[in-house]
Amino acid sequence: MAHFSYPQKVLFKHCDPAGIVFYPRFFEMINDAIEALFADLLRWPFEEIHQSGAVPTKGFEVEFKAPARHGDQLTLEITLTKLGRTSLALETLATADGTTRFTAKQTLVHVGDTLRPTPWPEPIRQRLTSLMEPDT
Amino acid sequence: MAHFSYPQKVLFKHCDPAGIVFYPRFFEMINDAIEALFADLLRWPFEEIHQSGAVPTKGFEVEFKAPARHGDQLTLEITLTKLGRTSLALETLATADGTTRFTAKQTLVHVGDTLRPTPWPEPIRQRLTSLMEPDT
Amino acid sequence: MAHFSYPQKVLFKHCDPAGIVFYPRFFEMINDAIEALFADLLRWPFEEIHQSGAVPTKGFEVEFKAPARHGDQLTLEITLTKLGRTSLALETLATADGTTRFTAKQTLVHVGDTLRPTPWPEPIRQRLTSLMEPDT
Amino acid sequence: MAHFSYPQKVLFKHCDPAGIVFYPRFFEMINDAIEALFADLLRWPFEEIHQSGAVPTKGFEVEFKAPARHGDQLTLEITLTKLGRTSLALETLATADGTTRFTAKQTLVHVGDTLRPTPWPEPIRQRLTSLMEPDT
Repeated sequence: MAHFSYPQKVLFKHCDPAGIVFYPRFFEMINDAIEALFADLLRWPFEEIHQSGAVPTKGFEVEFKAPARHGDQLTLEITLTKLGRTSLALETLATADGTTRFTAKQTLVHVGDTLRPTPWPEPIRQRLTSLMEPDT
Repeated sequence: MAHFSYPQKVLFKHCDPAGIVFYPRFFEMINDAIEALFADLLRWPFEEIHQSGAVPTKGFEVEFKAPARHGDQLTLEITLTKLGRTSLALETLATADGTTRFTAKQTLVHVGDTLRPTPWPEPIRQRLTSLMEPDT
Repeated sequence: MAHFSYPQKVLFKHCDPAGIVFYPRFFEMINDAIEALFADLLRWPFEEIHQSGAVPTKGFEVEFKAPARHGDQLTLEITLTKLGRTSLALETLATADGTTRFTAKQTLVHVGDTLRPTPWPEPIRQRLTSLMEPDT
Repeated sequence: MAHFSYPQKVLFKHCDPAGIVFYPRFFEMINDAIEALFADLLRWPFEEIHQSGAVPTKGFEVEFKAPARHGDQLTLEITLTKLGRTSLALETLATADGTTRFTAKQTLVHVGDTLRPTPWPEPIRQRLTSLMEPDT
């Protein structure tokens, strides 16, 4: 079950001479989707976070399963998989027309303005925890 | 031992409001470095490949070890790790000032104009094979 | 009177180390807005146009009036100013919080697959003409 | 007579589904060329400027004269045309294979950390002045 869904039509700017998405653009889409998740789901938008810190990514495992073409209606489904004291693991599943185009696993870290890992603010930790609780 | 070394100063365009490289830009740098490897080392530039095919990436494992800042002199060292009939595995080590900034593992696939895996052209396979032979 | 309005929040990816939009990103926004205009207003989306042609821009006159910051809610208002046999002149006014951030004038040309200027298809010319008629 | 020359091969990342440079990428190239001019010619690199200010562009007049294709060897020739107390006007001529691909006119402004126009530091003003003196 995804916690957040982000629609992204494949636009002209995303595509390369082969007419398919240039892979750095997939990482921009992932960043846009996570930025929207923080704004819409956590009510803690990036422009506010970046006044005192940041949420950089430690690394990615990405698999490109099928090309995405200009005009495809992608949906990025983000699942929060693990909450740590200063970190958050996420998985993204991107599909269009019922076909998986790519999957990505990544871990974010909350850092302060010195770029050191810093515990999530308590209200954010609570919202993340409640989002991740299984439905009863 | 790296097979190809690609220098890339961190420029204004690469950096985000935190003054460090925005991660999609690292993937552009990786693509630029591989494009230079194909042009300089294999004498098979992307603009020629793309007349009849492409060399898309199947996936990435990337770790961001330390941030890279505006003005840092990065070097991307690419090692060819495994040659398949239609594929090529690569590892990239990016350092600046003696510190690793990121590492990336990826597998390219050679495809024809229908985007199906296609064996490497024989002269390219030979050049790749000789590059990967251990020094004697 | 604008013919098309395109909202674009200023996202993390748009911003530079000074925390304001990096100007090449404004040109991406302009392209996205025009792509949306063609899809939504003309029902002739870029992914369809690019099967047989393109609508490249001949040039720009752009003035950056005030910086746009991360989190600003921009609106790009596009006015169609002149329709030619193969061309279309447009003006974009980008505002946020009631303040103009940039203005842009440009001329598009419809070209065929050889990149030569080609008359607008008749249904498109008619839709453009009716859009530009003054209200009575 | 150009004051600075910046070579830029057209790379895969620059190109769109029509196989030609996507125009926001030309503006990135212009920014890269000016960043190199400040570093190499003025010995005042952007990473140093951005510790206390910036050199934003007030506006552009750009004409795209001929498309640039993947693999083209572009050269951007920059001419300093007018030095003001806080501003600098520049013209860029981009050619490949003897053909002009685009021309751009722009005016930079030196600003302090509040983004207000600020006089050029005296050593920079002197270097700019001597660069612009006609040969005798």
